[in-house]
Amino acid sequence: MPKIVDHGARRAELAEAMWRAVYRDGAAAATVRSIAAEAGWSPGALRHYFATQTDLLVFAMEHVMTKATERFRAEDWSGPPRQVVQRMLEQLLPLDRQRVREAEVWLLLAARTQEDPAARARLAQANEGIRSAAGLAVHTLTGAGLVAVDRDPDLEAARLHALLDGLALHALLHPDLMPPDRVRAVLGDHLDSLRQPHRPGR
Amino acid sequence: MPKIVDHGARRAELAEAMWRAVYRDGAAAATVRSIAAEAGWSPGALRHYFATQTDLLVFAMEHVMTKATERFRAEDWSGPPRQVVQRMLEQLLPLDRQRVREAEVWLLLAARTQEDPAARARLAQANEGIRSAAGLAVHTLTGAGLVAVDRDPDLEAARLHALLDGLALHALLHPDLMPPDRVRAVLGDHLDSLRQPHRPGR
Repeated sequence: MPKIVDHGARRAELAEAMWRAVYRDGAAAATVRSIAAEAGWSPGALRHYFATQTDLLVFAMEHVMTKATERFRAEDWSGPPRQVVQRMLEQLLPLDRQRVREAEVWLLLAARTQEDPAARARLAQANEGIRSAAGLAVHTLTGAGLVAVDRDPDLEAARLHALLDGLALHALLHPDLMPPDRVRAVLGDHLDSLRQPHRPGR
Repeated sequence: MPKIVDHGARRAELAEAMWRAVYRDGAAAATVRSIAAEAGWSPGALRHYFATQTDLLVFAMEHVMTKATERFRAEDWSGPPRQVVQRMLEQLLPLDRQRVREAEVWLLLAARTQEDPAARARLAQANEGIRSAAGLAVHTLTGAGLVAVDRDPDLEAARLHALLDGLALHALLHPDLMPPDRVRAVLGDHLDSLRQPHRPGR
């Protein structure tokens, strides 16, 4: 009789081992060899599921997106719109240890998109998530009368999206220059500034 | 008699071979093996200079910074401050093929900072360059009366810096969503918005 393997359960087991290693040692340590050791598998058995480190990162990014969605759903989103929007956007930034690890996965994946179509597809998916969140933020603030009427919503969403990813990058790579409080202050300043008319003199 | 090797000349020769390969095939193709082939060296001889791909990227980033400095010096910086600042900042963004390749090197290096102190040091150096440019932009616009007096110059420099790196990332990774004209429009919108008082009602 053929051996019956529950591939879903094995992938879940691997995901758990991978994130234990990533949270402990950082995303760069997520190699096929180290994850196999963490899971108590042979590297050969792991390669049956993930042939390369890029495959592992594509899988890890799926977990990042699931975690972000779970955090969104678990949160109480009542409150003044300006504060709710800031809290929502801060969820997407690497302001605590867990989200720093998640941002590391994002950056490592981004660096592999040139060579790997699967990395490119997964990153595009993650990017759509942040893009939607930026659009929702501008939409929510507009609905609350907190965006000047002469501002172009699409341009503002694109600008906020670029600011968010730039802040994520700086918080991750240059935490000495951009500690969490500074990141929050820059984001808050940006959200406040949307209330000002774009070109009042024209 | 010992063989006399001009290490400076050999490094320059390698840099040329490396950038031929990077401009043709992308930064991800800059491996020790491929650069050795491009230069007509053995991989072993190349490893004498650069043991790993990260060493190559650290070296390549030096070239990126030199090129950016040369472009700055070659440019005519006369003209209205608002336009001069926009032109200066656009020089730092991947809006043409050469600067896309340079941004690829930046991204690959950024993804290696966790594992490699030399990568971290070189990236910090490059980051200081962009940070200074953002500070200079805010300073120049302020001097020309194009920044509202209640804006905090340090916060504005940090915000512009984050926006620049976010735009660079989007132009590089999602060119379909952020083509050069869109990047220019978002940057221009941001610079214009600095003229508005931050909180006129307070």
